[in-house]
Amino acid sequence: MISVVIIGNGNIATHLKSAFLRVDRIRVTQINSRKLENIPESDITILAVSDDAISDVSLKITNSFVVHTSGSSSIKDLKNKSNKGVFYMLQTFSKDKEIDFSKIPFCLEAENKEDYLLLETLAKAIGVKVYNINSEQRKAIHVAAVFVNNFTNHLYKIGNDICEENKVPFEILQPLIDETSQKIKTLSPEKAQTGPAIRNDKKTIKNHLELLNIEQQKIYKILTKSIVDGVN
Amino acid sequence: MISVVIIGNGNIATHLKSAFLRVDRIRVTQINSRKLENIPESDITILAVSDDAISDVSLKITNSFVVHTSGSSSIKDLKNKSNKGVFYMLQTFSKDKEIDFSKIPFCLEAENKEDYLLLETLAKAIGVKVYNINSEQRKAIHVAAVFVNNFTNHLYKIGNDICEENKVPFEILQPLIDETSQKIKTLSPEKAQTGPAIRNDKKTIKNHLELLNIEQQKIYKILTKSIVDGVN
Repeated sequence: MISVVIIGNGNIATHLKSAFLRVDRIRVTQINSRKLENIPESDITILAVSDDAISDVSLKITNSFVVHTSGSSSIKDLKNKSNKGVFYMLQTFSKDKEIDFSKIPFCLEAENKEDYLLLETLAKAIGVKVYNINSEQRKAIHVAAVFVNNFTNHLYKIGNDICEENKVPFEILQPLIDETSQKIKTLSPEKAQTGPAIRNDKKTIKNHLELLNIEQQKIYKILTKSIVDGVN
Repeated sequence: MISVVIIGNGNIATHLKSAFLRVDRIRVTQINSRKLENIPESDITILAVSDDAISDVSLKITNSFVVHTSGSSSIKDLKNKSNKGVFYMLQTFSKDKEIDFSKIPFCLEAENKEDYLLLETLAKAIGVKVYNINSEQRKAIHVAAVFVNNFTNHLYKIGNDICEENKVPFEILQPLIDETSQKIKTLSPEKAQTGPAIRNDKKTIKNHLELLNIEQQKIYKILTKSIVDGVN
């Protein structure tokens, strides 16, 4: 039996609690971060609070092993005097959407092997993909995630804007979006690249720029230049 | 029975020919674009040649109905004296990879209704998603495709570079990439946006910039600014 206390009531706290509740050998208690009295001792105390609150909240906890769930915070941001760790799930969480934990990478960090193995047991009770990731690596993953998730989504938005302006349904791009995201499972992104930039096809690039507004042109130019030059 | 002549021997010509061969009511002949003698008359003559060759090759064809397969060329780039049209498939084609035509959007254009219906019949013999798209719209789709395919793939490359520098396997980002590409099937990209830029979380943005090289910083800054401002 592993006893878990989850502190917080955002998306991550809610989804984690639901997942743990389905596992017989885990006993889970959820606590509002503004009511930190009488926290029961537990094997693992998970702080699922905003990045800014990690230090303050952890200061008030006397439990034996405290972990946070933040991609961009160091293990050192925890200020409890007991053992520290990180239980970071690399995925975007939406309130209403069911989470398939079997597809989520768990990035775990702890100060000693025993604590790490405990976190690993907890992660494997609800998931399958478990990685030992230190704080420097996790920060890098968090930045990389901004590129492949937030920035990619913004490129989808620009594609959507261009379609709307021309009365074309955005769904027409979805098969291409699917193929682009799946191709890199078997080919490195560098080898998967196609299009006018990698061919340095100046005529097509010029024609494209004429169709775009100034903001879109800026983005088109910098990404084309980066593909032509290679980013290193 | 529909008779089709395909001129060209690149990826599109090869994949199209294979697909047509599997349909009983289509008779297909493939011709090398450098050997334009004795072209048999046919219901539809498909020019699957490079954009630059469309005008020159079409000038030499006397068949009754000639279409090209280019996303970035106008129907007016065809210089045959007979009827003209466009048979554009919105997808990236790789030589070795089998194509699932049922998932590919066919963007069709013709000068008159009868020709359009013939193209539609041909497209529906191998595919299911058929759109009536004029030359202006097709050019816009082609630019939008560069954003959601080539530029997105470049963001994947940057994600891969960051992972490699930090000895993290790139596969760790694949579930997030999948989720990002699937989310927009049910939510507009604008509503699907998350992350530090949309929250204008300056502290995280500053921390991220410190981890990037100058080229990556430029791209990070311009995309973050575009998300913060909104691109219109």
